[in-house]
Amino acid sequence: MRIDVLSLFPEMFTHVFGSSILKHAQQSGLVTYQVVDFRDYANNKHRKVDDYPYGGGAGMVLRAQPFFDAVDDLVKEGQKRPRVVMLCPQGERYSQKKAEEFSKEEHLILLCGHYEGYDERVREYLVTDEVSIGDYVLTGGELGAMVIADSVTRLLPGVLGNEESAVTDSFSTGLLEHPHYTRPAEYRGMRVPDILLSGHHKNIEEWRSRESLKRTWERRPDLLERKNLSEKEQKWIDEFTRKQ
Amino acid sequence: MRIDVLSLFPEMFTHVFGSSILKHAQQSGLVTYQVVDFRDYANNKHRKVDDYPYGGGAGMVLRAQPFFDAVDDLVKEGQKRPRVVMLCPQGERYSQKKAEEFSKEEHLILLCGHYEGYDERVREYLVTDEVSIGDYVLTGGELGAMVIADSVTRLLPGVLGNEESAVTDSFSTGLLEHPHYTRPAEYRGMRVPDILLSGHHKNIEEWRSRESLKRTWERRPDLLERKNLSEKEQKWIDEFTRKQ
Repeated sequence: MRIDVLSLFPEMFTHVFGSSILKHAQQSGLVTYQVVDFRDYANNKHRKVDDYPYGGGAGMVLRAQPFFDAVDDLVKEGQKRPRVVMLCPQGERYSQKKAEEFSKEEHLILLCGHYEGYDERVREYLVTDEVSIGDYVLTGGELGAMVIADSVTRLLPGVLGNEESAVTDSFSTGLLEHPHYTRPAEYRGMRVPDILLSGHHKNIEEWRSRESLKRTWERRPDLLERKNLSEKEQKWIDEFTRKQ
Repeated sequence: MRIDVLSLFPEMFTHVFGSSILKHAQQSGLVTYQVVDFRDYANNKHRKVDDYPYGGGAGMVLRAQPFFDAVDDLVKEGQKRPRVVMLCPQGERYSQKKAEEFSKEEHLILLCGHYEGYDERVREYLVTDEVSIGDYVLTGGELGAMVIADSVTRLLPGVLGNEESAVTDSFSTGLLEHPHYTRPAEYRGMRVPDILLSGHHKNIEEWRSRESLKRTWERRPDLLERKNLSEKEQKWIDEFTRKQ
């Protein structure tokens, strides 16, 4: 897969794409990241990428031309049209489902604006997806592009080793994870639950299932609405409710 | 304000905290960022920060000790206890409201795990807030910590200039932004709406209000539920509905 990013702050990506799993994925040839400063495509003397808004008002607007020309340049002739993803507060809320969808593409181009708006023609004629990573105000689209690159890369076949895969899989049960503990059994007076030290695997499994369900019930009841509960799970939930 | 980050990949933050508005905020003395490799606090020979889970199972667990010792070290004697924020999928969904809450603190410490779970004692006894930036799987807490640092820093008094403030303010109307356009009036055959070229300010304002409402109605109807609509806005919504 190939992921291109258009940004005015390309250096922000250097160590993010160059660390940990993303670094290894690129070194293994499973993904290619390229970060392009779209200022390089501005067709005017001062390489200006923004201009005043038609109709007046505060703030500047990112010009259409550098985005259109940069995308033209990144898409090779005869190649399948890539997904062109705009990071913006008005976009669809990004989710794991969207990450899975993107991970099936051969080529993504991510557009990062910066506190200014984009010329609407970029949105209307160039972009295939508008995405927001959450309901909070960020300085630019860069952190959103990193979120997409990370979440998508992790889904590419061969990127995760067995150990990481196993951990991720627990997410796909539709429940939050149960508590984890490691050595020492007592630290600063805080003890690991006895059951985890018991060596009784069946009880440990049952404790973990119950804790996982409890945490989900407490923190993300919305996840339970979509889930078919077993008889035992329903009984546990009745117990949690009585204890409230 | 002071923001400390505990991470195993401190270099990821270098150019993010060193670019754009975050860089200026730090240079102006409005915020201090410090990124600490918590491996430096591991009290064993090989600086190991993880260990096998009690009770068995796949994956490793981040040990409690390096986190407790690092936080002790970062909190100076007599100082008010900081907010200690854990980035994790089980956390409360991060939002602009939470950013506003954090921006009133003097000191935040952000803990970044990495695909492995944290020892539960960190969650239970050290952490004041657990936060998730969205429903997608990421390699570590680093991108979440950047999201918090960015969104919080922008809210500190003096960080944003007038121009950026004005743009941000449009978010606080509770509606998505109207479309923006800048020169040229025609680009690759795509034209700017005539009304924006008319110079008739009252009509332009009305067009923008309507487009802003329309975009919100189409994309984020949930935002309208919390809003008191004027008579005119209600009339516009009736029009959008009829045209569907």
